[in-house]
Amino acid sequence: MAQEQVVTPWEVSGSGAIDYDKLISQFGCEKLEQRLIDRVVKLTGKRAHTFLRRGVFFAHRDFEKVLDSYEKGEKFYLYTGRGPSSEALHLGHLIPFMFTKYLQDAFKVPLVIQLTDDEKCMWKNLSVEETKRLARENAKDIIACGFDISRTFIFSDFQYVGRGFYENMITIAKSVTFNQVKGIFGFDGESHIGKIFFPAVQAAPSFPTSFPHLFGTKSKIKCLIPCAIDQDPYFRMTRDVAPRLGYQKPALIESRFFPALQGESGKMSASDTNSAIYVKDTQKEIKKKIANYALSGGGDTKELQRKNGANLKVDIPFKYLTFFLDDDEELERIRDASNLFEYGSGRMLTGEIKNILSDVLWKMVEQHQQARLAVTEEMVDAFMAPREMPFMFEK
Amino acid sequence: MAQEQVVTPWEVSGSGAIDYDKLISQFGCEKLEQRLIDRVVKLTGKRAHTFLRRGVFFAHRDFEKVLDSYEKGEKFYLYTGRGPSSEALHLGHLIPFMFTKYLQDAFKVPLVIQLTDDEKCMWKNLSVEETKRLARENAKDIIACGFDISRTFIFSDFQYVGRGFYENMITIAKSVTFNQVKGIFGFDGESHIGKIFFPAVQAAPSFPTSFPHLFGTKSKIKCLIPCAIDQDPYFRMTRDVAPRLGYQKPALIESRFFPALQGESGKMSASDTNSAIYVKDTQKEIKKKIANYALSGGGDTKELQRKNGANLKVDIPFKYLTFFLDDDEELERIRDASNLFEYGSGRMLTGEIKNILSDVLWKMVEQHQQARLAVTEEMVDAFMAPREMPFMFEK
Repeated sequence: MAQEQVVTPWEVSGSGAIDYDKLISQFGCEKLEQRLIDRVVKLTGKRAHTFLRRGVFFAHRDFEKVLDSYEKGEKFYLYTGRGPSSEALHLGHLIPFMFTKYLQDAFKVPLVIQLTDDEKCMWKNLSVEETKRLARENAKDIIACGFDISRTFIFSDFQYVGRGFYENMITIAKSVTFNQVKGIFGFDGESHIGKIFFPAVQAAPSFPTSFPHLFGTKSKIKCLIPCAIDQDPYFRMTRDVAPRLGYQKPALIESRFFPALQGESGKMSASDTNSAIYVKDTQKEIKKKIANYALSGGGDTKELQRKNGANLKVDIPFKYLTFFLDDDEELERIRDASNLFEYGSGRMLTGEIKNILSDVLWKMVEQHQQARLAVTEEMVDAFMAPREMPFMFEK
Repeated sequence: MAQEQVVTPWEVSGSGAIDYDKLISQFGCEKLEQRLIDRVVKLTGKRAHTFLRRGVFFAHRDFEKVLDSYEKGEKFYLYTGRGPSSEALHLGHLIPFMFTKYLQDAFKVPLVIQLTDDEKCMWKNLSVEETKRLARENAKDIIACGFDISRTFIFSDFQYVGRGFYENMITIAKSVTFNQVKGIFGFDGESHIGKIFFPAVQAAPSFPTSFPHLFGTKSKIKCLIPCAIDQDPYFRMTRDVAPRLGYQKPALIESRFFPALQGESGKMSASDTNSAIYVKDTQKEIKKKIANYALSGGGDTKELQRKNGANLKVDIPFKYLTFFLDDDEELERIRDASNLFEYGSGRMLTGEIKNILSDVLWKMVEQHQQARLAVTEEMVDAFMAPREMPFMFEK
């Protein structure tokens, strides 16, 4: 019997692959249609990001409204984040940041990045000091993604919560009942009161007055949140309270999950190092993990492969390439070479596609590692300093 | 049928007067015995405060331990507070501050005063701006009580929450479940998540690391909280979590409620201006309120008065004098003159005791008003500035 799929910020489970169409109707968000991608291209004059062309970001809420007002000359700001539970970032963790960097470059807008060290201190039972350390280490990996320092404010909750931000936490919290968070997040009576309150902390950056040094008292500036779709519950809640508090509802652009090497049945596990490629992995480790663990869609035997070809719907090397191989023609060549006829004919064997993937990933990881090495403590301080930033207020 | 007495931070009710002995056993605190008062006198070289001599502060938790370690040369700090829901402070509001000032002068210790503007924003549904304004106005009345600026840090949550303080909020919050606050405070599923979380905000000042500018990283400094006994639930919870977080349990010294003019069946109501004497009342208003509304223990008619004398157990003018008439001999004279024989004989009539009270209260209120007039905005800024203070760390 099919197990029902469960997607919350802390749990992604179900029988087999996530049904993303079902998730869209379950959550009540919208499909990101081609015409919106075309509008992005037209408005920004930039080629659509790989993640848009390949449907990695596939759902949204009010993204069209953001584009409408941007077209009229009204800027917005971007908000994304990370829960710093570990130093070991894997490729899945990079996806929202890579995409957000593209959006920042394309739209030339300010960006706030929340590191929820308070959340991880509570959920993972880590010490305050350890989560603060992890937040700073994660900030380095985030900075290595290439964000524009003149438009990017990275903050950790333990460092930044207070004043305008805390005021918003409180006004949000007083608009949401226990029964509501119980319904949205599945909390119960044994949940601690920090957990119960936390949705207000993650909601606060959606409102511009949480950042007086960036937006002053301007309360009508729109916020666009690029995130994985498991974060949707937080922002459903935020969107629900926003109008009552005199704010715009934050818009969302939401991604699929990056699958584990072992196959697409959820998110990767931080505790199983063989389930993911980490940004600190060596070329050798990457090669080995892909060779040993990446689920192939090819047949179990050479004969079955010849007969049936590769099932690209489950083939992890091919899936990973759809995320990270930017060259559309090359991807199509691989798709063709791997389909029933070609794969069966031996034009492209499992080993070959795995080698291509290893090269693509190592190139990306190597570049990340070099960029991260160049990140100094002073740069982290600079990105994390509350400060003014240029921003055209249209309203 | 006797209604059960209910005492929470938001509700004080019951049939008739509060049974304070019952409250002590209900809450699990201890009676403040004479020998402890004698020790305070011996340790500080100061006469016991009126509120100690008259049993206004009547209960405690671990107060003896604070005295023990003080005797060994180990200092502690004081923590009290106010929820700024209104500009109109009445005499009941002054009681913890008058007593805390005495403790500060007697023990020469630092004091933190929390203004819970966040709480009132949530409970009273006031705007953030209005509660911040009220916090600042209330700070002026608090400063007018005569606190030593070199040892007093006044803060509002909207102004001060962050960093070490927020870290403590989070570590407290992760140690308390919804079911626990439900049991302690009576929250339910329809309570908003701000309410549910708030006990962690009121608990945080009990731990010295919430004030790094005062105590650095010293985590073992003891905290003594003078407060009305309705605040006990917050600190029961705090004391429960303290050892798990590596902190001392805060000690408490707890007062009775100051009765309404209409009689001792709970706290005064801020919404009924005739139920209390306010610090802004004129001499004429005070005289009139006492004449018209102060419940007399005298008989309904002159004949009944003659026959039965005054019942001092319910007589509000006499009760108010026990709080605010410092002169023990004069109070005894009035008690004698008002007892069955004397009152009946007409030696002291209701009008006369009311006149004495009017004079005592006006003298106190006039002095407060003059002190408050002298409080400048600069003084408020100075009291509310996070700053270092002299403090001998013995540990």
